[in-house]
Amino acid sequence: MLSQEQVPSAVEGSLQAFFDDSALALATISPVVARVGEALTDFVLGGGKRIRPLFVHAGWHCALTETGASAHPLGPEAVTASEALMVRTGAAIELIQACALVHDDILDRSDTRRGKPTVHRRFERWHRDSQWAGDSAHHGSSAAILLGDLALAWADDLVHGYGPAAPDGDRVPLPPRAGALWSRMRTEVLGGQLLDITNEVSGDESVDAADRVMEFKTAAYTVTRPLELGAALGGASPELSAALRRIGNGLGLAFQLRDDLLGAFGDPEQTGKPSGDDLIAGKRTVLVALAFAKSDPATAATLRGLLGRELSTGELATARGILTDSGALADVEARIDEHLTTAVADIAALPIAEPARTDLTALAHRIAHRQT
Amino acid sequence: MLSQEQVPSAVEGSLQAFFDDSALALATISPVVARVGEALTDFVLGGGKRIRPLFVHAGWHCALTETGASAHPLGPEAVTASEALMVRTGAAIELIQACALVHDDILDRSDTRRGKPTVHRRFERWHRDSQWAGDSAHHGSSAAILLGDLALAWADDLVHGYGPAAPDGDRVPLPPRAGALWSRMRTEVLGGQLLDITNEVSGDESVDAADRVMEFKTAAYTVTRPLELGAALGGASPELSAALRRIGNGLGLAFQLRDDLLGAFGDPEQTGKPSGDDLIAGKRTVLVALAFAKSDPATAATLRGLLGRELSTGELATARGILTDSGALADVEARIDEHLTTAVADIAALPIAEPARTDLTALAHRIAHRQT
Repeated sequence: MLSQEQVPSAVEGSLQAFFDDSALALATISPVVARVGEALTDFVLGGGKRIRPLFVHAGWHCALTETGASAHPLGPEAVTASEALMVRTGAAIELIQACALVHDDILDRSDTRRGKPTVHRRFERWHRDSQWAGDSAHHGSSAAILLGDLALAWADDLVHGYGPAAPDGDRVPLPPRAGALWSRMRTEVLGGQLLDITNEVSGDESVDAADRVMEFKTAAYTVTRPLELGAALGGASPELSAALRRIGNGLGLAFQLRDDLLGAFGDPEQTGKPSGDDLIAGKRTVLVALAFAKSDPATAATLRGLLGRELSTGELATARGILTDSGALADVEARIDEHLTTAVADIAALPIAEPARTDLTALAHRIAHRQT
Repeated sequence: MLSQEQVPSAVEGSLQAFFDDSALALATISPVVARVGEALTDFVLGGGKRIRPLFVHAGWHCALTETGASAHPLGPEAVTASEALMVRTGAAIELIQACALVHDDILDRSDTRRGKPTVHRRFERWHRDSQWAGDSAHHGSSAAILLGDLALAWADDLVHGYGPAAPDGDRVPLPPRAGALWSRMRTEVLGGQLLDITNEVSGDESVDAADRVMEFKTAAYTVTRPLELGAALGGASPELSAALRRIGNGLGLAFQLRDDLLGAFGDPEQTGKPSGDDLIAGKRTVLVALAFAKSDPATAATLRGLLGRELSTGELATARGILTDSGALADVEARIDEHLTTAVADIAALPIAEPARTDLTALAHRIAHRQT
């Protein structure tokens, strides 16, 4: 049975096999298209912490070690079959994530990701280096939109057991419960992104608005649904699934709150993003919403003037000062601790066996306290 | 059994039901997101000739009426079940098409589609009318990118029998043969689009390059794969599927060649697009490639200078004159006729019964000679 440590390489192996097959299908269309496939392969396999596949694994592992009256453990053959589905599902979420990041970087006009040029900037440079006609930036965005679409389409192919070059038969279908969760997850993350970009421009500074973006764009998509998907694949009882959903919600919020802190205070060396990235992008995070709620009008106006534009070192320090002095930073840290403490207690009470319990607990601590 | 005439309304009913369910899921996220769902609903149900669903129906109908030694007709219950799958698959392709059109309009910087503002322009105006912060055009494109992503994700949900608000069970899965075709079709259309935008900027003027875009971006996606998908759902023999694939290729090329002519010579009143749209966009169509191949260097240079920019009435007339006088127009018409004649003869020889044969023949004539 696949251990937590083995998940990233198993998922990367699944992705590599899918990309290898797909490369043939793309090369049939044109070498130019094959090169776009290579760019997607580089992007997906070149980085990422595989957080979502780790939660799929955790949910699956909890289901397999479920104890008590509601448990109906899978037999050995079913475990093997569900392990393949679990890896495939984790890999497919990484493709959703590739689409989300590549398209988000266009929306946010980001130049770097993981310390490297973003995909639309890479295509922009390719256009310029090739001395092609027209607007390099527009071509870069256009190619990146289509690359993201391809990643999204491939995510569905992979999760349902298909591939552009795969044979017609010989596939294990996704169980309906998992398929329904998969469907909801994609609508939630896209809905959350739409809400996010709308809040940004409409100037909704409320904590409630930021909370709702966090709930759908991140918590559901990064933790809750992956955990539930894994649980469904492992044959979890409805009670265990419900308990994991509650735990996932709390951990998902902790994940996003940590993300807010890293986006304002993170070390570029570790995050791979520019310093104060979220502030420059004008993101309406819970951290920023709390700072508005906790500041006097003059300070709030100063903060408002420091969001959504390039910042000098001094201005960035001023913005960070407001986030800290208003108590928003401490409040966010306290919320993270609270979510983590509740989740860890709930994990301790789950009707599951080791090593699933220790693994999920470790994962909870890791995402709440990550530095990247 | 559903007749050809009933296909558009059956497909629209399937889409309406899916949108109604999904509206609830979006409203749970936020009223703002629900409004984006309404924009997608308006876009999909507000127009479109349902050409792809008609080919899914045609392929399915051919399979159901297949005769001869290879035929293994479905029983009455299986016919009813496959009819629901056929409608669902046709509706799902309309969602792929929504993503393709909405994203294409961003890539092509198009302002109008079907005589109305394109989706990114609608969101741009929404931003401006709401007096929101930031760049209206950028917000319009951002929202349209996400709306297209949602359409693409929903296409997969629908074809696999899921929905963001659907219950977990009670669904009919897609047969693996159809799922494999669905998978290939999406990679082909996205690969074709990538090749298209690359040819446009790299200045590849060859007929071969335009042919390859046509093959993948249009022929496979608009005719061949829909026909094959329908045939797979209707339980066609491998021989019938192969014959339909050949017919589909020819008709798909005829469809795109007619599209080239409409894009250069079409009546804006009928097409809903500006006059000479493809020329202004600088599209490297087979029509244009033939004009280059058939013109002397000076005329080719003149044509080159008239592609990819706004054109006065006089300039548009000059460009059309070159397309006509070079013989490119006549050549494209001759190619359409040749593809149509071959396809009609092949349809006449198919081992199928009426009304499938008459319906497919009528559809062939319709797409080769359409005015919109």
